[in-house]
Amino acid sequence: MALLYGSSYQIPGTSPGALIAPADQPAGEAVLTLTRFDSSKVEEAVHVTPEDCRAWLAQAAEAAARVPEAEAPASKHANRAIFWLHISGTPDADLARRLQDSLGLHPLALEDVLNGGQRPKVELYDEHLFVVMTHVDYSGVDLRLYQTSLFLKGNLVISIDAGDDGLFLPVRERLTRGGRLRQLGPDYLLYALIDLIVDHKFPLLERMGSEIEDLETDLLEDPPADANRRLLRMKRHLLLLRRQQWPEREVLNLLLRGDKEMGIGKKTLPYLRDSYDHTVQLMDLLETYREVVTELQNALMLATSNRLNDIIRVLAVISVIFMPLTFIVGVYGMNFDPAAGWLNMPELGWAYGYPAVMIVMLGLTVGMLWFFRKRGWL
Amino acid sequence: MALLYGSSYQIPGTSPGALIAPADQPAGEAVLTLTRFDSSKVEEAVHVTPEDCRAWLAQAAEAAARVPEAEAPASKHANRAIFWLHISGTPDADLARRLQDSLGLHPLALEDVLNGGQRPKVELYDEHLFVVMTHVDYSGVDLRLYQTSLFLKGNLVISIDAGDDGLFLPVRERLTRGGRLRQLGPDYLLYALIDLIVDHKFPLLERMGSEIEDLETDLLEDPPADANRRLLRMKRHLLLLRRQQWPEREVLNLLLRGDKEMGIGKKTLPYLRDSYDHTVQLMDLLETYREVVTELQNALMLATSNRLNDIIRVLAVISVIFMPLTFIVGVYGMNFDPAAGWLNMPELGWAYGYPAVMIVMLGLTVGMLWFFRKRGWL
Amino acid sequence: MALLYGSSYQIPGTSPGALIAPADQPAGEAVLTLTRFDSSKVEEAVHVTPEDCRAWLAQAAEAAARVPEAEAPASKHANRAIFWLHISGTPDADLARRLQDSLGLHPLALEDVLNGGQRPKVELYDEHLFVVMTHVDYSGVDLRLYQTSLFLKGNLVISIDAGDDGLFLPVRERLTRGGRLRQLGPDYLLYALIDLIVDHKFPLLERMGSEIEDLETDLLEDPPADANRRLLRMKRHLLLLRRQQWPEREVLNLLLRGDKEMGIGKKTLPYLRDSYDHTVQLMDLLETYREVVTELQNALMLATSNRLNDIIRVLAVISVIFMPLTFIVGVYGMNFDPAAGWLNMPELGWAYGYPAVMIVMLGLTVGMLWFFRKRGWL
Amino acid sequence: MALLYGSSYQIPGTSPGALIAPADQPAGEAVLTLTRFDSSKVEEAVHVTPEDCRAWLAQAAEAAARVPEAEAPASKHANRAIFWLHISGTPDADLARRLQDSLGLHPLALEDVLNGGQRPKVELYDEHLFVVMTHVDYSGVDLRLYQTSLFLKGNLVISIDAGDDGLFLPVRERLTRGGRLRQLGPDYLLYALIDLIVDHKFPLLERMGSEIEDLETDLLEDPPADANRRLLRMKRHLLLLRRQQWPEREVLNLLLRGDKEMGIGKKTLPYLRDSYDHTVQLMDLLETYREVVTELQNALMLATSNRLNDIIRVLAVISVIFMPLTFIVGVYGMNFDPAAGWLNMPELGWAYGYPAVMIVMLGLTVGMLWFFRKRGWL
Amino acid sequence: MALLYGSSYQIPGTSPGALIAPADQPAGEAVLTLTRFDSSKVEEAVHVTPEDCRAWLAQAAEAAARVPEAEAPASKHANRAIFWLHISGTPDADLARRLQDSLGLHPLALEDVLNGGQRPKVELYDEHLFVVMTHVDYSGVDLRLYQTSLFLKGNLVISIDAGDDGLFLPVRERLTRGGRLRQLGPDYLLYALIDLIVDHKFPLLERMGSEIEDLETDLLEDPPADANRRLLRMKRHLLLLRRQQWPEREVLNLLLRGDKEMGIGKKTLPYLRDSYDHTVQLMDLLETYREVVTELQNALMLATSNRLNDIIRVLAVISVIFMPLTFIVGVYGMNFDPAAGWLNMPELGWAYGYPAVMIVMLGLTVGMLWFFRKRGWL
Repeated sequence: MALLYGSSYQIPGTSPGALIAPADQPAGEAVLTLTRFDSSKVEEAVHVTPEDCRAWLAQAAEAAARVPEAEAPASKHANRAIFWLHISGTPDADLARRLQDSLGLHPLALEDVLNGGQRPKVELYDEHLFVVMTHVDYSGVDLRLYQTSLFLKGNLVISIDAGDDGLFLPVRERLTRGGRLRQLGPDYLLYALIDLIVDHKFPLLERMGSEIEDLETDLLEDPPADANRRLLRMKRHLLLLRRQQWPEREVLNLLLRGDKEMGIGKKTLPYLRDSYDHTVQLMDLLETYREVVTELQNALMLATSNRLNDIIRVLAVISVIFMPLTFIVGVYGMNFDPAAGWLNMPELGWAYGYPAVMIVMLGLTVGMLWFFRKRGWL
Repeated sequence: MALLYGSSYQIPGTSPGALIAPADQPAGEAVLTLTRFDSSKVEEAVHVTPEDCRAWLAQAAEAAARVPEAEAPASKHANRAIFWLHISGTPDADLARRLQDSLGLHPLALEDVLNGGQRPKVELYDEHLFVVMTHVDYSGVDLRLYQTSLFLKGNLVISIDAGDDGLFLPVRERLTRGGRLRQLGPDYLLYALIDLIVDHKFPLLERMGSEIEDLETDLLEDPPADANRRLLRMKRHLLLLRRQQWPEREVLNLLLRGDKEMGIGKKTLPYLRDSYDHTVQLMDLLETYREVVTELQNALMLATSNRLNDIIRVLAVISVIFMPLTFIVGVYGMNFDPAAGWLNMPELGWAYGYPAVMIVMLGLTVGMLWFFRKRGWL
Repeated sequence: MALLYGSSYQIPGTSPGALIAPADQPAGEAVLTLTRFDSSKVEEAVHVTPEDCRAWLAQAAEAAARVPEAEAPASKHANRAIFWLHISGTPDADLARRLQDSLGLHPLALEDVLNGGQRPKVELYDEHLFVVMTHVDYSGVDLRLYQTSLFLKGNLVISIDAGDDGLFLPVRERLTRGGRLRQLGPDYLLYALIDLIVDHKFPLLERMGSEIEDLETDLLEDPPADANRRLLRMKRHLLLLRRQQWPEREVLNLLLRGDKEMGIGKKTLPYLRDSYDHTVQLMDLLETYREVVTELQNALMLATSNRLNDIIRVLAVISVIFMPLTFIVGVYGMNFDPAAGWLNMPELGWAYGYPAVMIVMLGLTVGMLWFFRKRGWL
Repeated sequence: MALLYGSSYQIPGTSPGALIAPADQPAGEAVLTLTRFDSSKVEEAVHVTPEDCRAWLAQAAEAAARVPEAEAPASKHANRAIFWLHISGTPDADLARRLQDSLGLHPLALEDVLNGGQRPKVELYDEHLFVVMTHVDYSGVDLRLYQTSLFLKGNLVISIDAGDDGLFLPVRERLTRGGRLRQLGPDYLLYALIDLIVDHKFPLLERMGSEIEDLETDLLEDPPADANRRLLRMKRHLLLLRRQQWPEREVLNLLLRGDKEMGIGKKTLPYLRDSYDHTVQLMDLLETYREVVTELQNALMLATSNRLNDIIRVLAVISVIFMPLTFIVGVYGMNFDPAAGWLNMPELGWAYGYPAVMIVMLGLTVGMLWFFRKRGWL
Repeated sequence: MALLYGSSYQIPGTSPGALIAPADQPAGEAVLTLTRFDSSKVEEAVHVTPEDCRAWLAQAAEAAARVPEAEAPASKHANRAIFWLHISGTPDADLARRLQDSLGLHPLALEDVLNGGQRPKVELYDEHLFVVMTHVDYSGVDLRLYQTSLFLKGNLVISIDAGDDGLFLPVRERLTRGGRLRQLGPDYLLYALIDLIVDHKFPLLERMGSEIEDLETDLLEDPPADANRRLLRMKRHLLLLRRQQWPEREVLNLLLRGDKEMGIGKKTLPYLRDSYDHTVQLMDLLETYREVVTELQNALMLATSNRLNDIIRVLAVISVIFMPLTFIVGVYGMNFDPAAGWLNMPELGWAYGYPAVMIVMLGLTVGMLWFFRKRGWL
């Protein structure tokens, strides 16, 4: 059920922002990894606590304050340390409360993190920017949707990925290698994470696309027995993906338009626009797939009808040929007594009765076949 | 019929705001409960009359006036008494008229209360804010919609729930426990009631979702006989829910946008936005369910066709095999007299006639089976 | 044809506003009733002429002018005489021309009156406001649409109802009884007429709703033979109603927004908003009915397929059981001569041949039945 | 093909505005008729050349210049000569070039005239206003669309009608009779032509409407063999009409809104609004027809299924009755030798064997009929 | 698969603008052709390198600088040399990087060039305008989409056509012949290229249109066996085309509206508007085709049902006639011994038994035929 319903919810009437984990949630073994980088170096600490993060952040803020304001105002920004806290797995209520206390995250946002399966959305709280996106995993049979939550608060970026399977590893590698990701601010890191979630769907859709094409080929040649089931499953997957993709496109649109208040710099905008283009392209593909699958359903319906016609045509031909023949041989199986009167089946006693009947039946069969040929049944 | 039609109406031509209860309405045994609370205490009185409410309100206004203006202007608001009048069941015309007289509710709004089944809407009268929402009850077979009317007039909140089954109990409990609900103003109470009506639909939709999934599993394996009926019922329920959900989303949107004139404070806004998100999520789920049920209908249609094909295939195989065989044995049942001429069925007198015919028929059957196998009918 | 096409038109190329009645129009026996009322009294004259109206109006204007301006400027409005000219039936070209001359109605508006079946619309001419609405009559089988035209010109309201069956009687009665209708201005009278036309559709839709529910019950139990025909008729009726309802909602929306120039006072606005709500509710019901009827069509299609499956299943079971049996008895009806050789049907001469064959056939039948049971055909 | 594709085009890569007639165009025998009128008189010249028009226009401009400016500035406009050049048939490339040279028409506009089948549109060039509309001709079987191009340039109106069959004759007649058409300016003439093109579609749609109603009656009683073909043809015609009607409505909307720059006077506006209303009404009818035809397709599908059920029911009844009977008589046609043993078909030798079998078979038949009656098959 | 999926993508997580060619791309043998023209002469160089282009451009800029500013400021523009670099085939990563270095193209734009199959779009970078369009090729069976990328940077126009088959040859020829293309600026050259891509689809759609009409004719007479397959293919092609056409229309709309910043002159605008009209017309055709093909699918479904009805009707007629007859002859084939009792088949010994049975059977057949005729089965 989880797939179709797809979202947890708090018991109605609970006080909002109460940070209670939903009952059916597996025990969260969330792992926190804190990365600190600036243009010169990258440090990483695994299995940290929210309290550690607060300490690191306070320390960095202190260090920044020590740098004399006059000195290198331009380069200062470049050297500002940026923090990335990545939480793999869904936090439990306790961790959520500690995140709230240590890092000042808004309780309504944390409530959305606890109750996974939210629609993708952007929310700008006084304290920070909050972005929900969906991380999709497709095994060829099952489609799994995990909520990915992103926070942007000053120079701290927090990412929480419910279904973490190394999705953000490429960003981690690019961080180590240096480059633009290290030069630009936390907004660019946010973009890099969003970009990954978006682009992650391309290989998935490519796989779906090739499945659709395979089914199409099969279906036109000889509809497989499970075609109905496969088409239904595809439709549902596309439905679920589209349900995520529409608001995801809107997320990028909002980030693009509300750039300033959201703390997204001018340099990051063209990259976000690029991601936006990708979400549009994904929507486009999803719509196309949907329409193709609908067409395949129509085609399957027609193919099933055609197959039925085929079978019934054969049945009809056989019946129409053999019923009269069987009737004729039945006639000459009657036991009327030829001796009782000259009208009683004199054919039986005629020397050429049998061959004559055979010839008549042959003629009848040939006539029938000609009739079917003309009707296009053969 | 009530379900599909779903709304009462006054006899056309009646003067508007005439407060006449519709003819088919059951005798309303409406129970009025008045709750008075501020940050320090909660009082509750059951089975009150509108006149009692007026008295209480007047008394509170007097008390407030006695507090010197200069003293604690900030804390004054916090200590202001808030009144919540809850009416369980639909009022009759008499009660409506007394509500109008004692509490100054607008006759057009009261007319909407009397004639249940209105679309969810927000209306801002000079006197007060009027909100109509729908309280949904789903037993697994029947879907029942009750109108819930809410009034916000100064520090008085009135809620009228036609199908009261303790829907607002959680709010009452939270009031007793204190917390945000006691601190913030009457607008927050209004929000808490609205939030409950909205969130109440999540468990309901979860139940529907699992019914759909069950049906899907059944349908793909072996379409149950009542699949058509169940799908039709689901479609109708989703239709009725969607018809309520669209305007309900609009209600929250209007409350969010028209906050000031409607008397909704800044502190309540983020919570209302949260409720709005929930209405969007509900719409989203309803649309998804609708599309899934449509897909199930298509799949059922195809499954029915496939089943028909199956049956007809078996019929055709049997007919096509036995018709020629029956013809052959019919031939040798004919009574032509072998004695009348050497051409008249000499096979009958041949020593190996019977086994030869049996072998021919066996060969024919094997040929047929090979033909069917090739055609994929077996 | 008139129903589907639904609108008369002038021969293309005719000069606009030429006031020529369409050829197929029945001879109009339009009856004019003039009502004059103020807060103190009501007068009514039947079978008046447009020229009479002009005289009355001139007289009233004179009387109003005689009242000294200084005296009671507030009460003056209240005492201003209001005129309501009701025309029952469609006017002929001659009457239209006299209405134009005597009362100054715009020729393009009168052309729309002559050529019935216009879409509901509001048009503001320099001279007056012109509103077209549709008065619907439903007998359970036929749906009839009549154009109702309304004019608001100063203190004169003109209503022309093509299919007059006492639609406006309730307004007449309320006028006699006094009340708000007598106190407020001509715009409120206009509202009262519009409100009646709108609300008139509620009982009609309730009736349709119960027809749909009846059909649904029938259809799920045993599709009646005329289900297809009834569904088609319902769809058409809903189509025609919707075609009227969309623009009718727009009419009320325009009246609400363009209030000032259209001469609609502030006091009438909340009432018009109420009517607007009703048009929205009607649209909503129509859409719901439409979707329910579409679902019923799908369900009927499926029920028809199921029925076919049922019939064919019985046919198949019988055929599959009796074809092999008939073949077997055919075999032992063959006339091979057992005397011609020991291989020629020795069974015939065996003492237990007949019971053995009977037992074989019984076994075959039992096997078949088991096979069908397993396949779920029985 | 021309109908579906419906538009000519220039070979891609041709220089725009090159005025080359499309290859498949029939040799245009375009006839030019110039009409000159003012409030006092009408003159008409057939078979003129573009050069003649230029001469006439120059002469009129000269005459107008001679009138002293001071004299009758108001009446001057009224007496200004208006020219109407009507071209019947599509011009060839040569004529187009001469129109460009003599009358200063824009080459891109003339290109659109040469390549018929454009979508209805309004274009405002510096030199003149250019309007494309569609003139529709319906024979009951074929739907033909002709492009009608209109130019408004100062006091000259040019109309080019590709499928001229006297469409504009009524305007010509009204011009001769005088009236508003002679009083108002060239914009009113433009309106009169547009109005004719729009209103021309009403009788056409009335005819389609009655065809649809006829088909509906037939279909519900006994679906005619060509119902599928007729429905398909109707759908295509409605599709093609709608494809023209949408932009045509937009044309009138643009003319209404962009009145000033387009040279359309205030007096003509109410008439254009009237035409706009007609285009809306036409759209409305087209949509209604489309939906009705779709409903008829559904009904035909259901009727076809019902018919199939009928046939198969009869087939099933006959088979189910006669198969067991045929089996029974087959049993007693077996040749087991009663003499070989007392178990071998003793019935054959029983004195009441034959009548007993007949009675059994009768009972079986009666039982079957009762079974069918209960199942509702008879 | 490539067709449905239709776009390459970079491995998710790759740094944006990294200019890595997708893995499955064929080795690009891109050929660069540089054309330099002004109003007086045209020069062309094939197989140039990006570095050559830079040299040419620098040289031209120098020459332009040498011309004294005062001299002929008007004619200067006319004589300004314009460069057109055409790249046939998709560039590889190396060429892309050299284009970036030599000509200053934006890396994100070049990334879109490398990863073909982008949606048509316009992007305005600081450095240049970037337009993506789609070049379509249709062989009657396969539909191939190639990305065409266009850059406008000062007086340089770059066109990159992935599927180059001489698409732009007509522009090249018109350049040689002189005319408007040589007079107007680089924006007009850009327009000419865009116009060609747009208009290129007209002959393609004409071809599709005639295929649809052919299929329609076939289908109504006798549905060909591959009708289902052909309709499915058409639907897919139309789907893919529409997916390109929507954004392509938007491209032209954006170019029209954002003219100034994009460097498109006033003189080019009317021509772009013309191209825009063509994209609208193409969309319109695509939608019409789509709806026609959908109608054909419906018609095919109905035709298949009708055909099935036909076959089953024949089957039913034959069965219903011959089953009773076969039963009757079976009766008289029973072996009851007439000698055992006077009730045992005395007909067999009656002198007129045989002719009587024959007459009864004839009568039965005639009765059946009359029944079928009445039912409309024959």
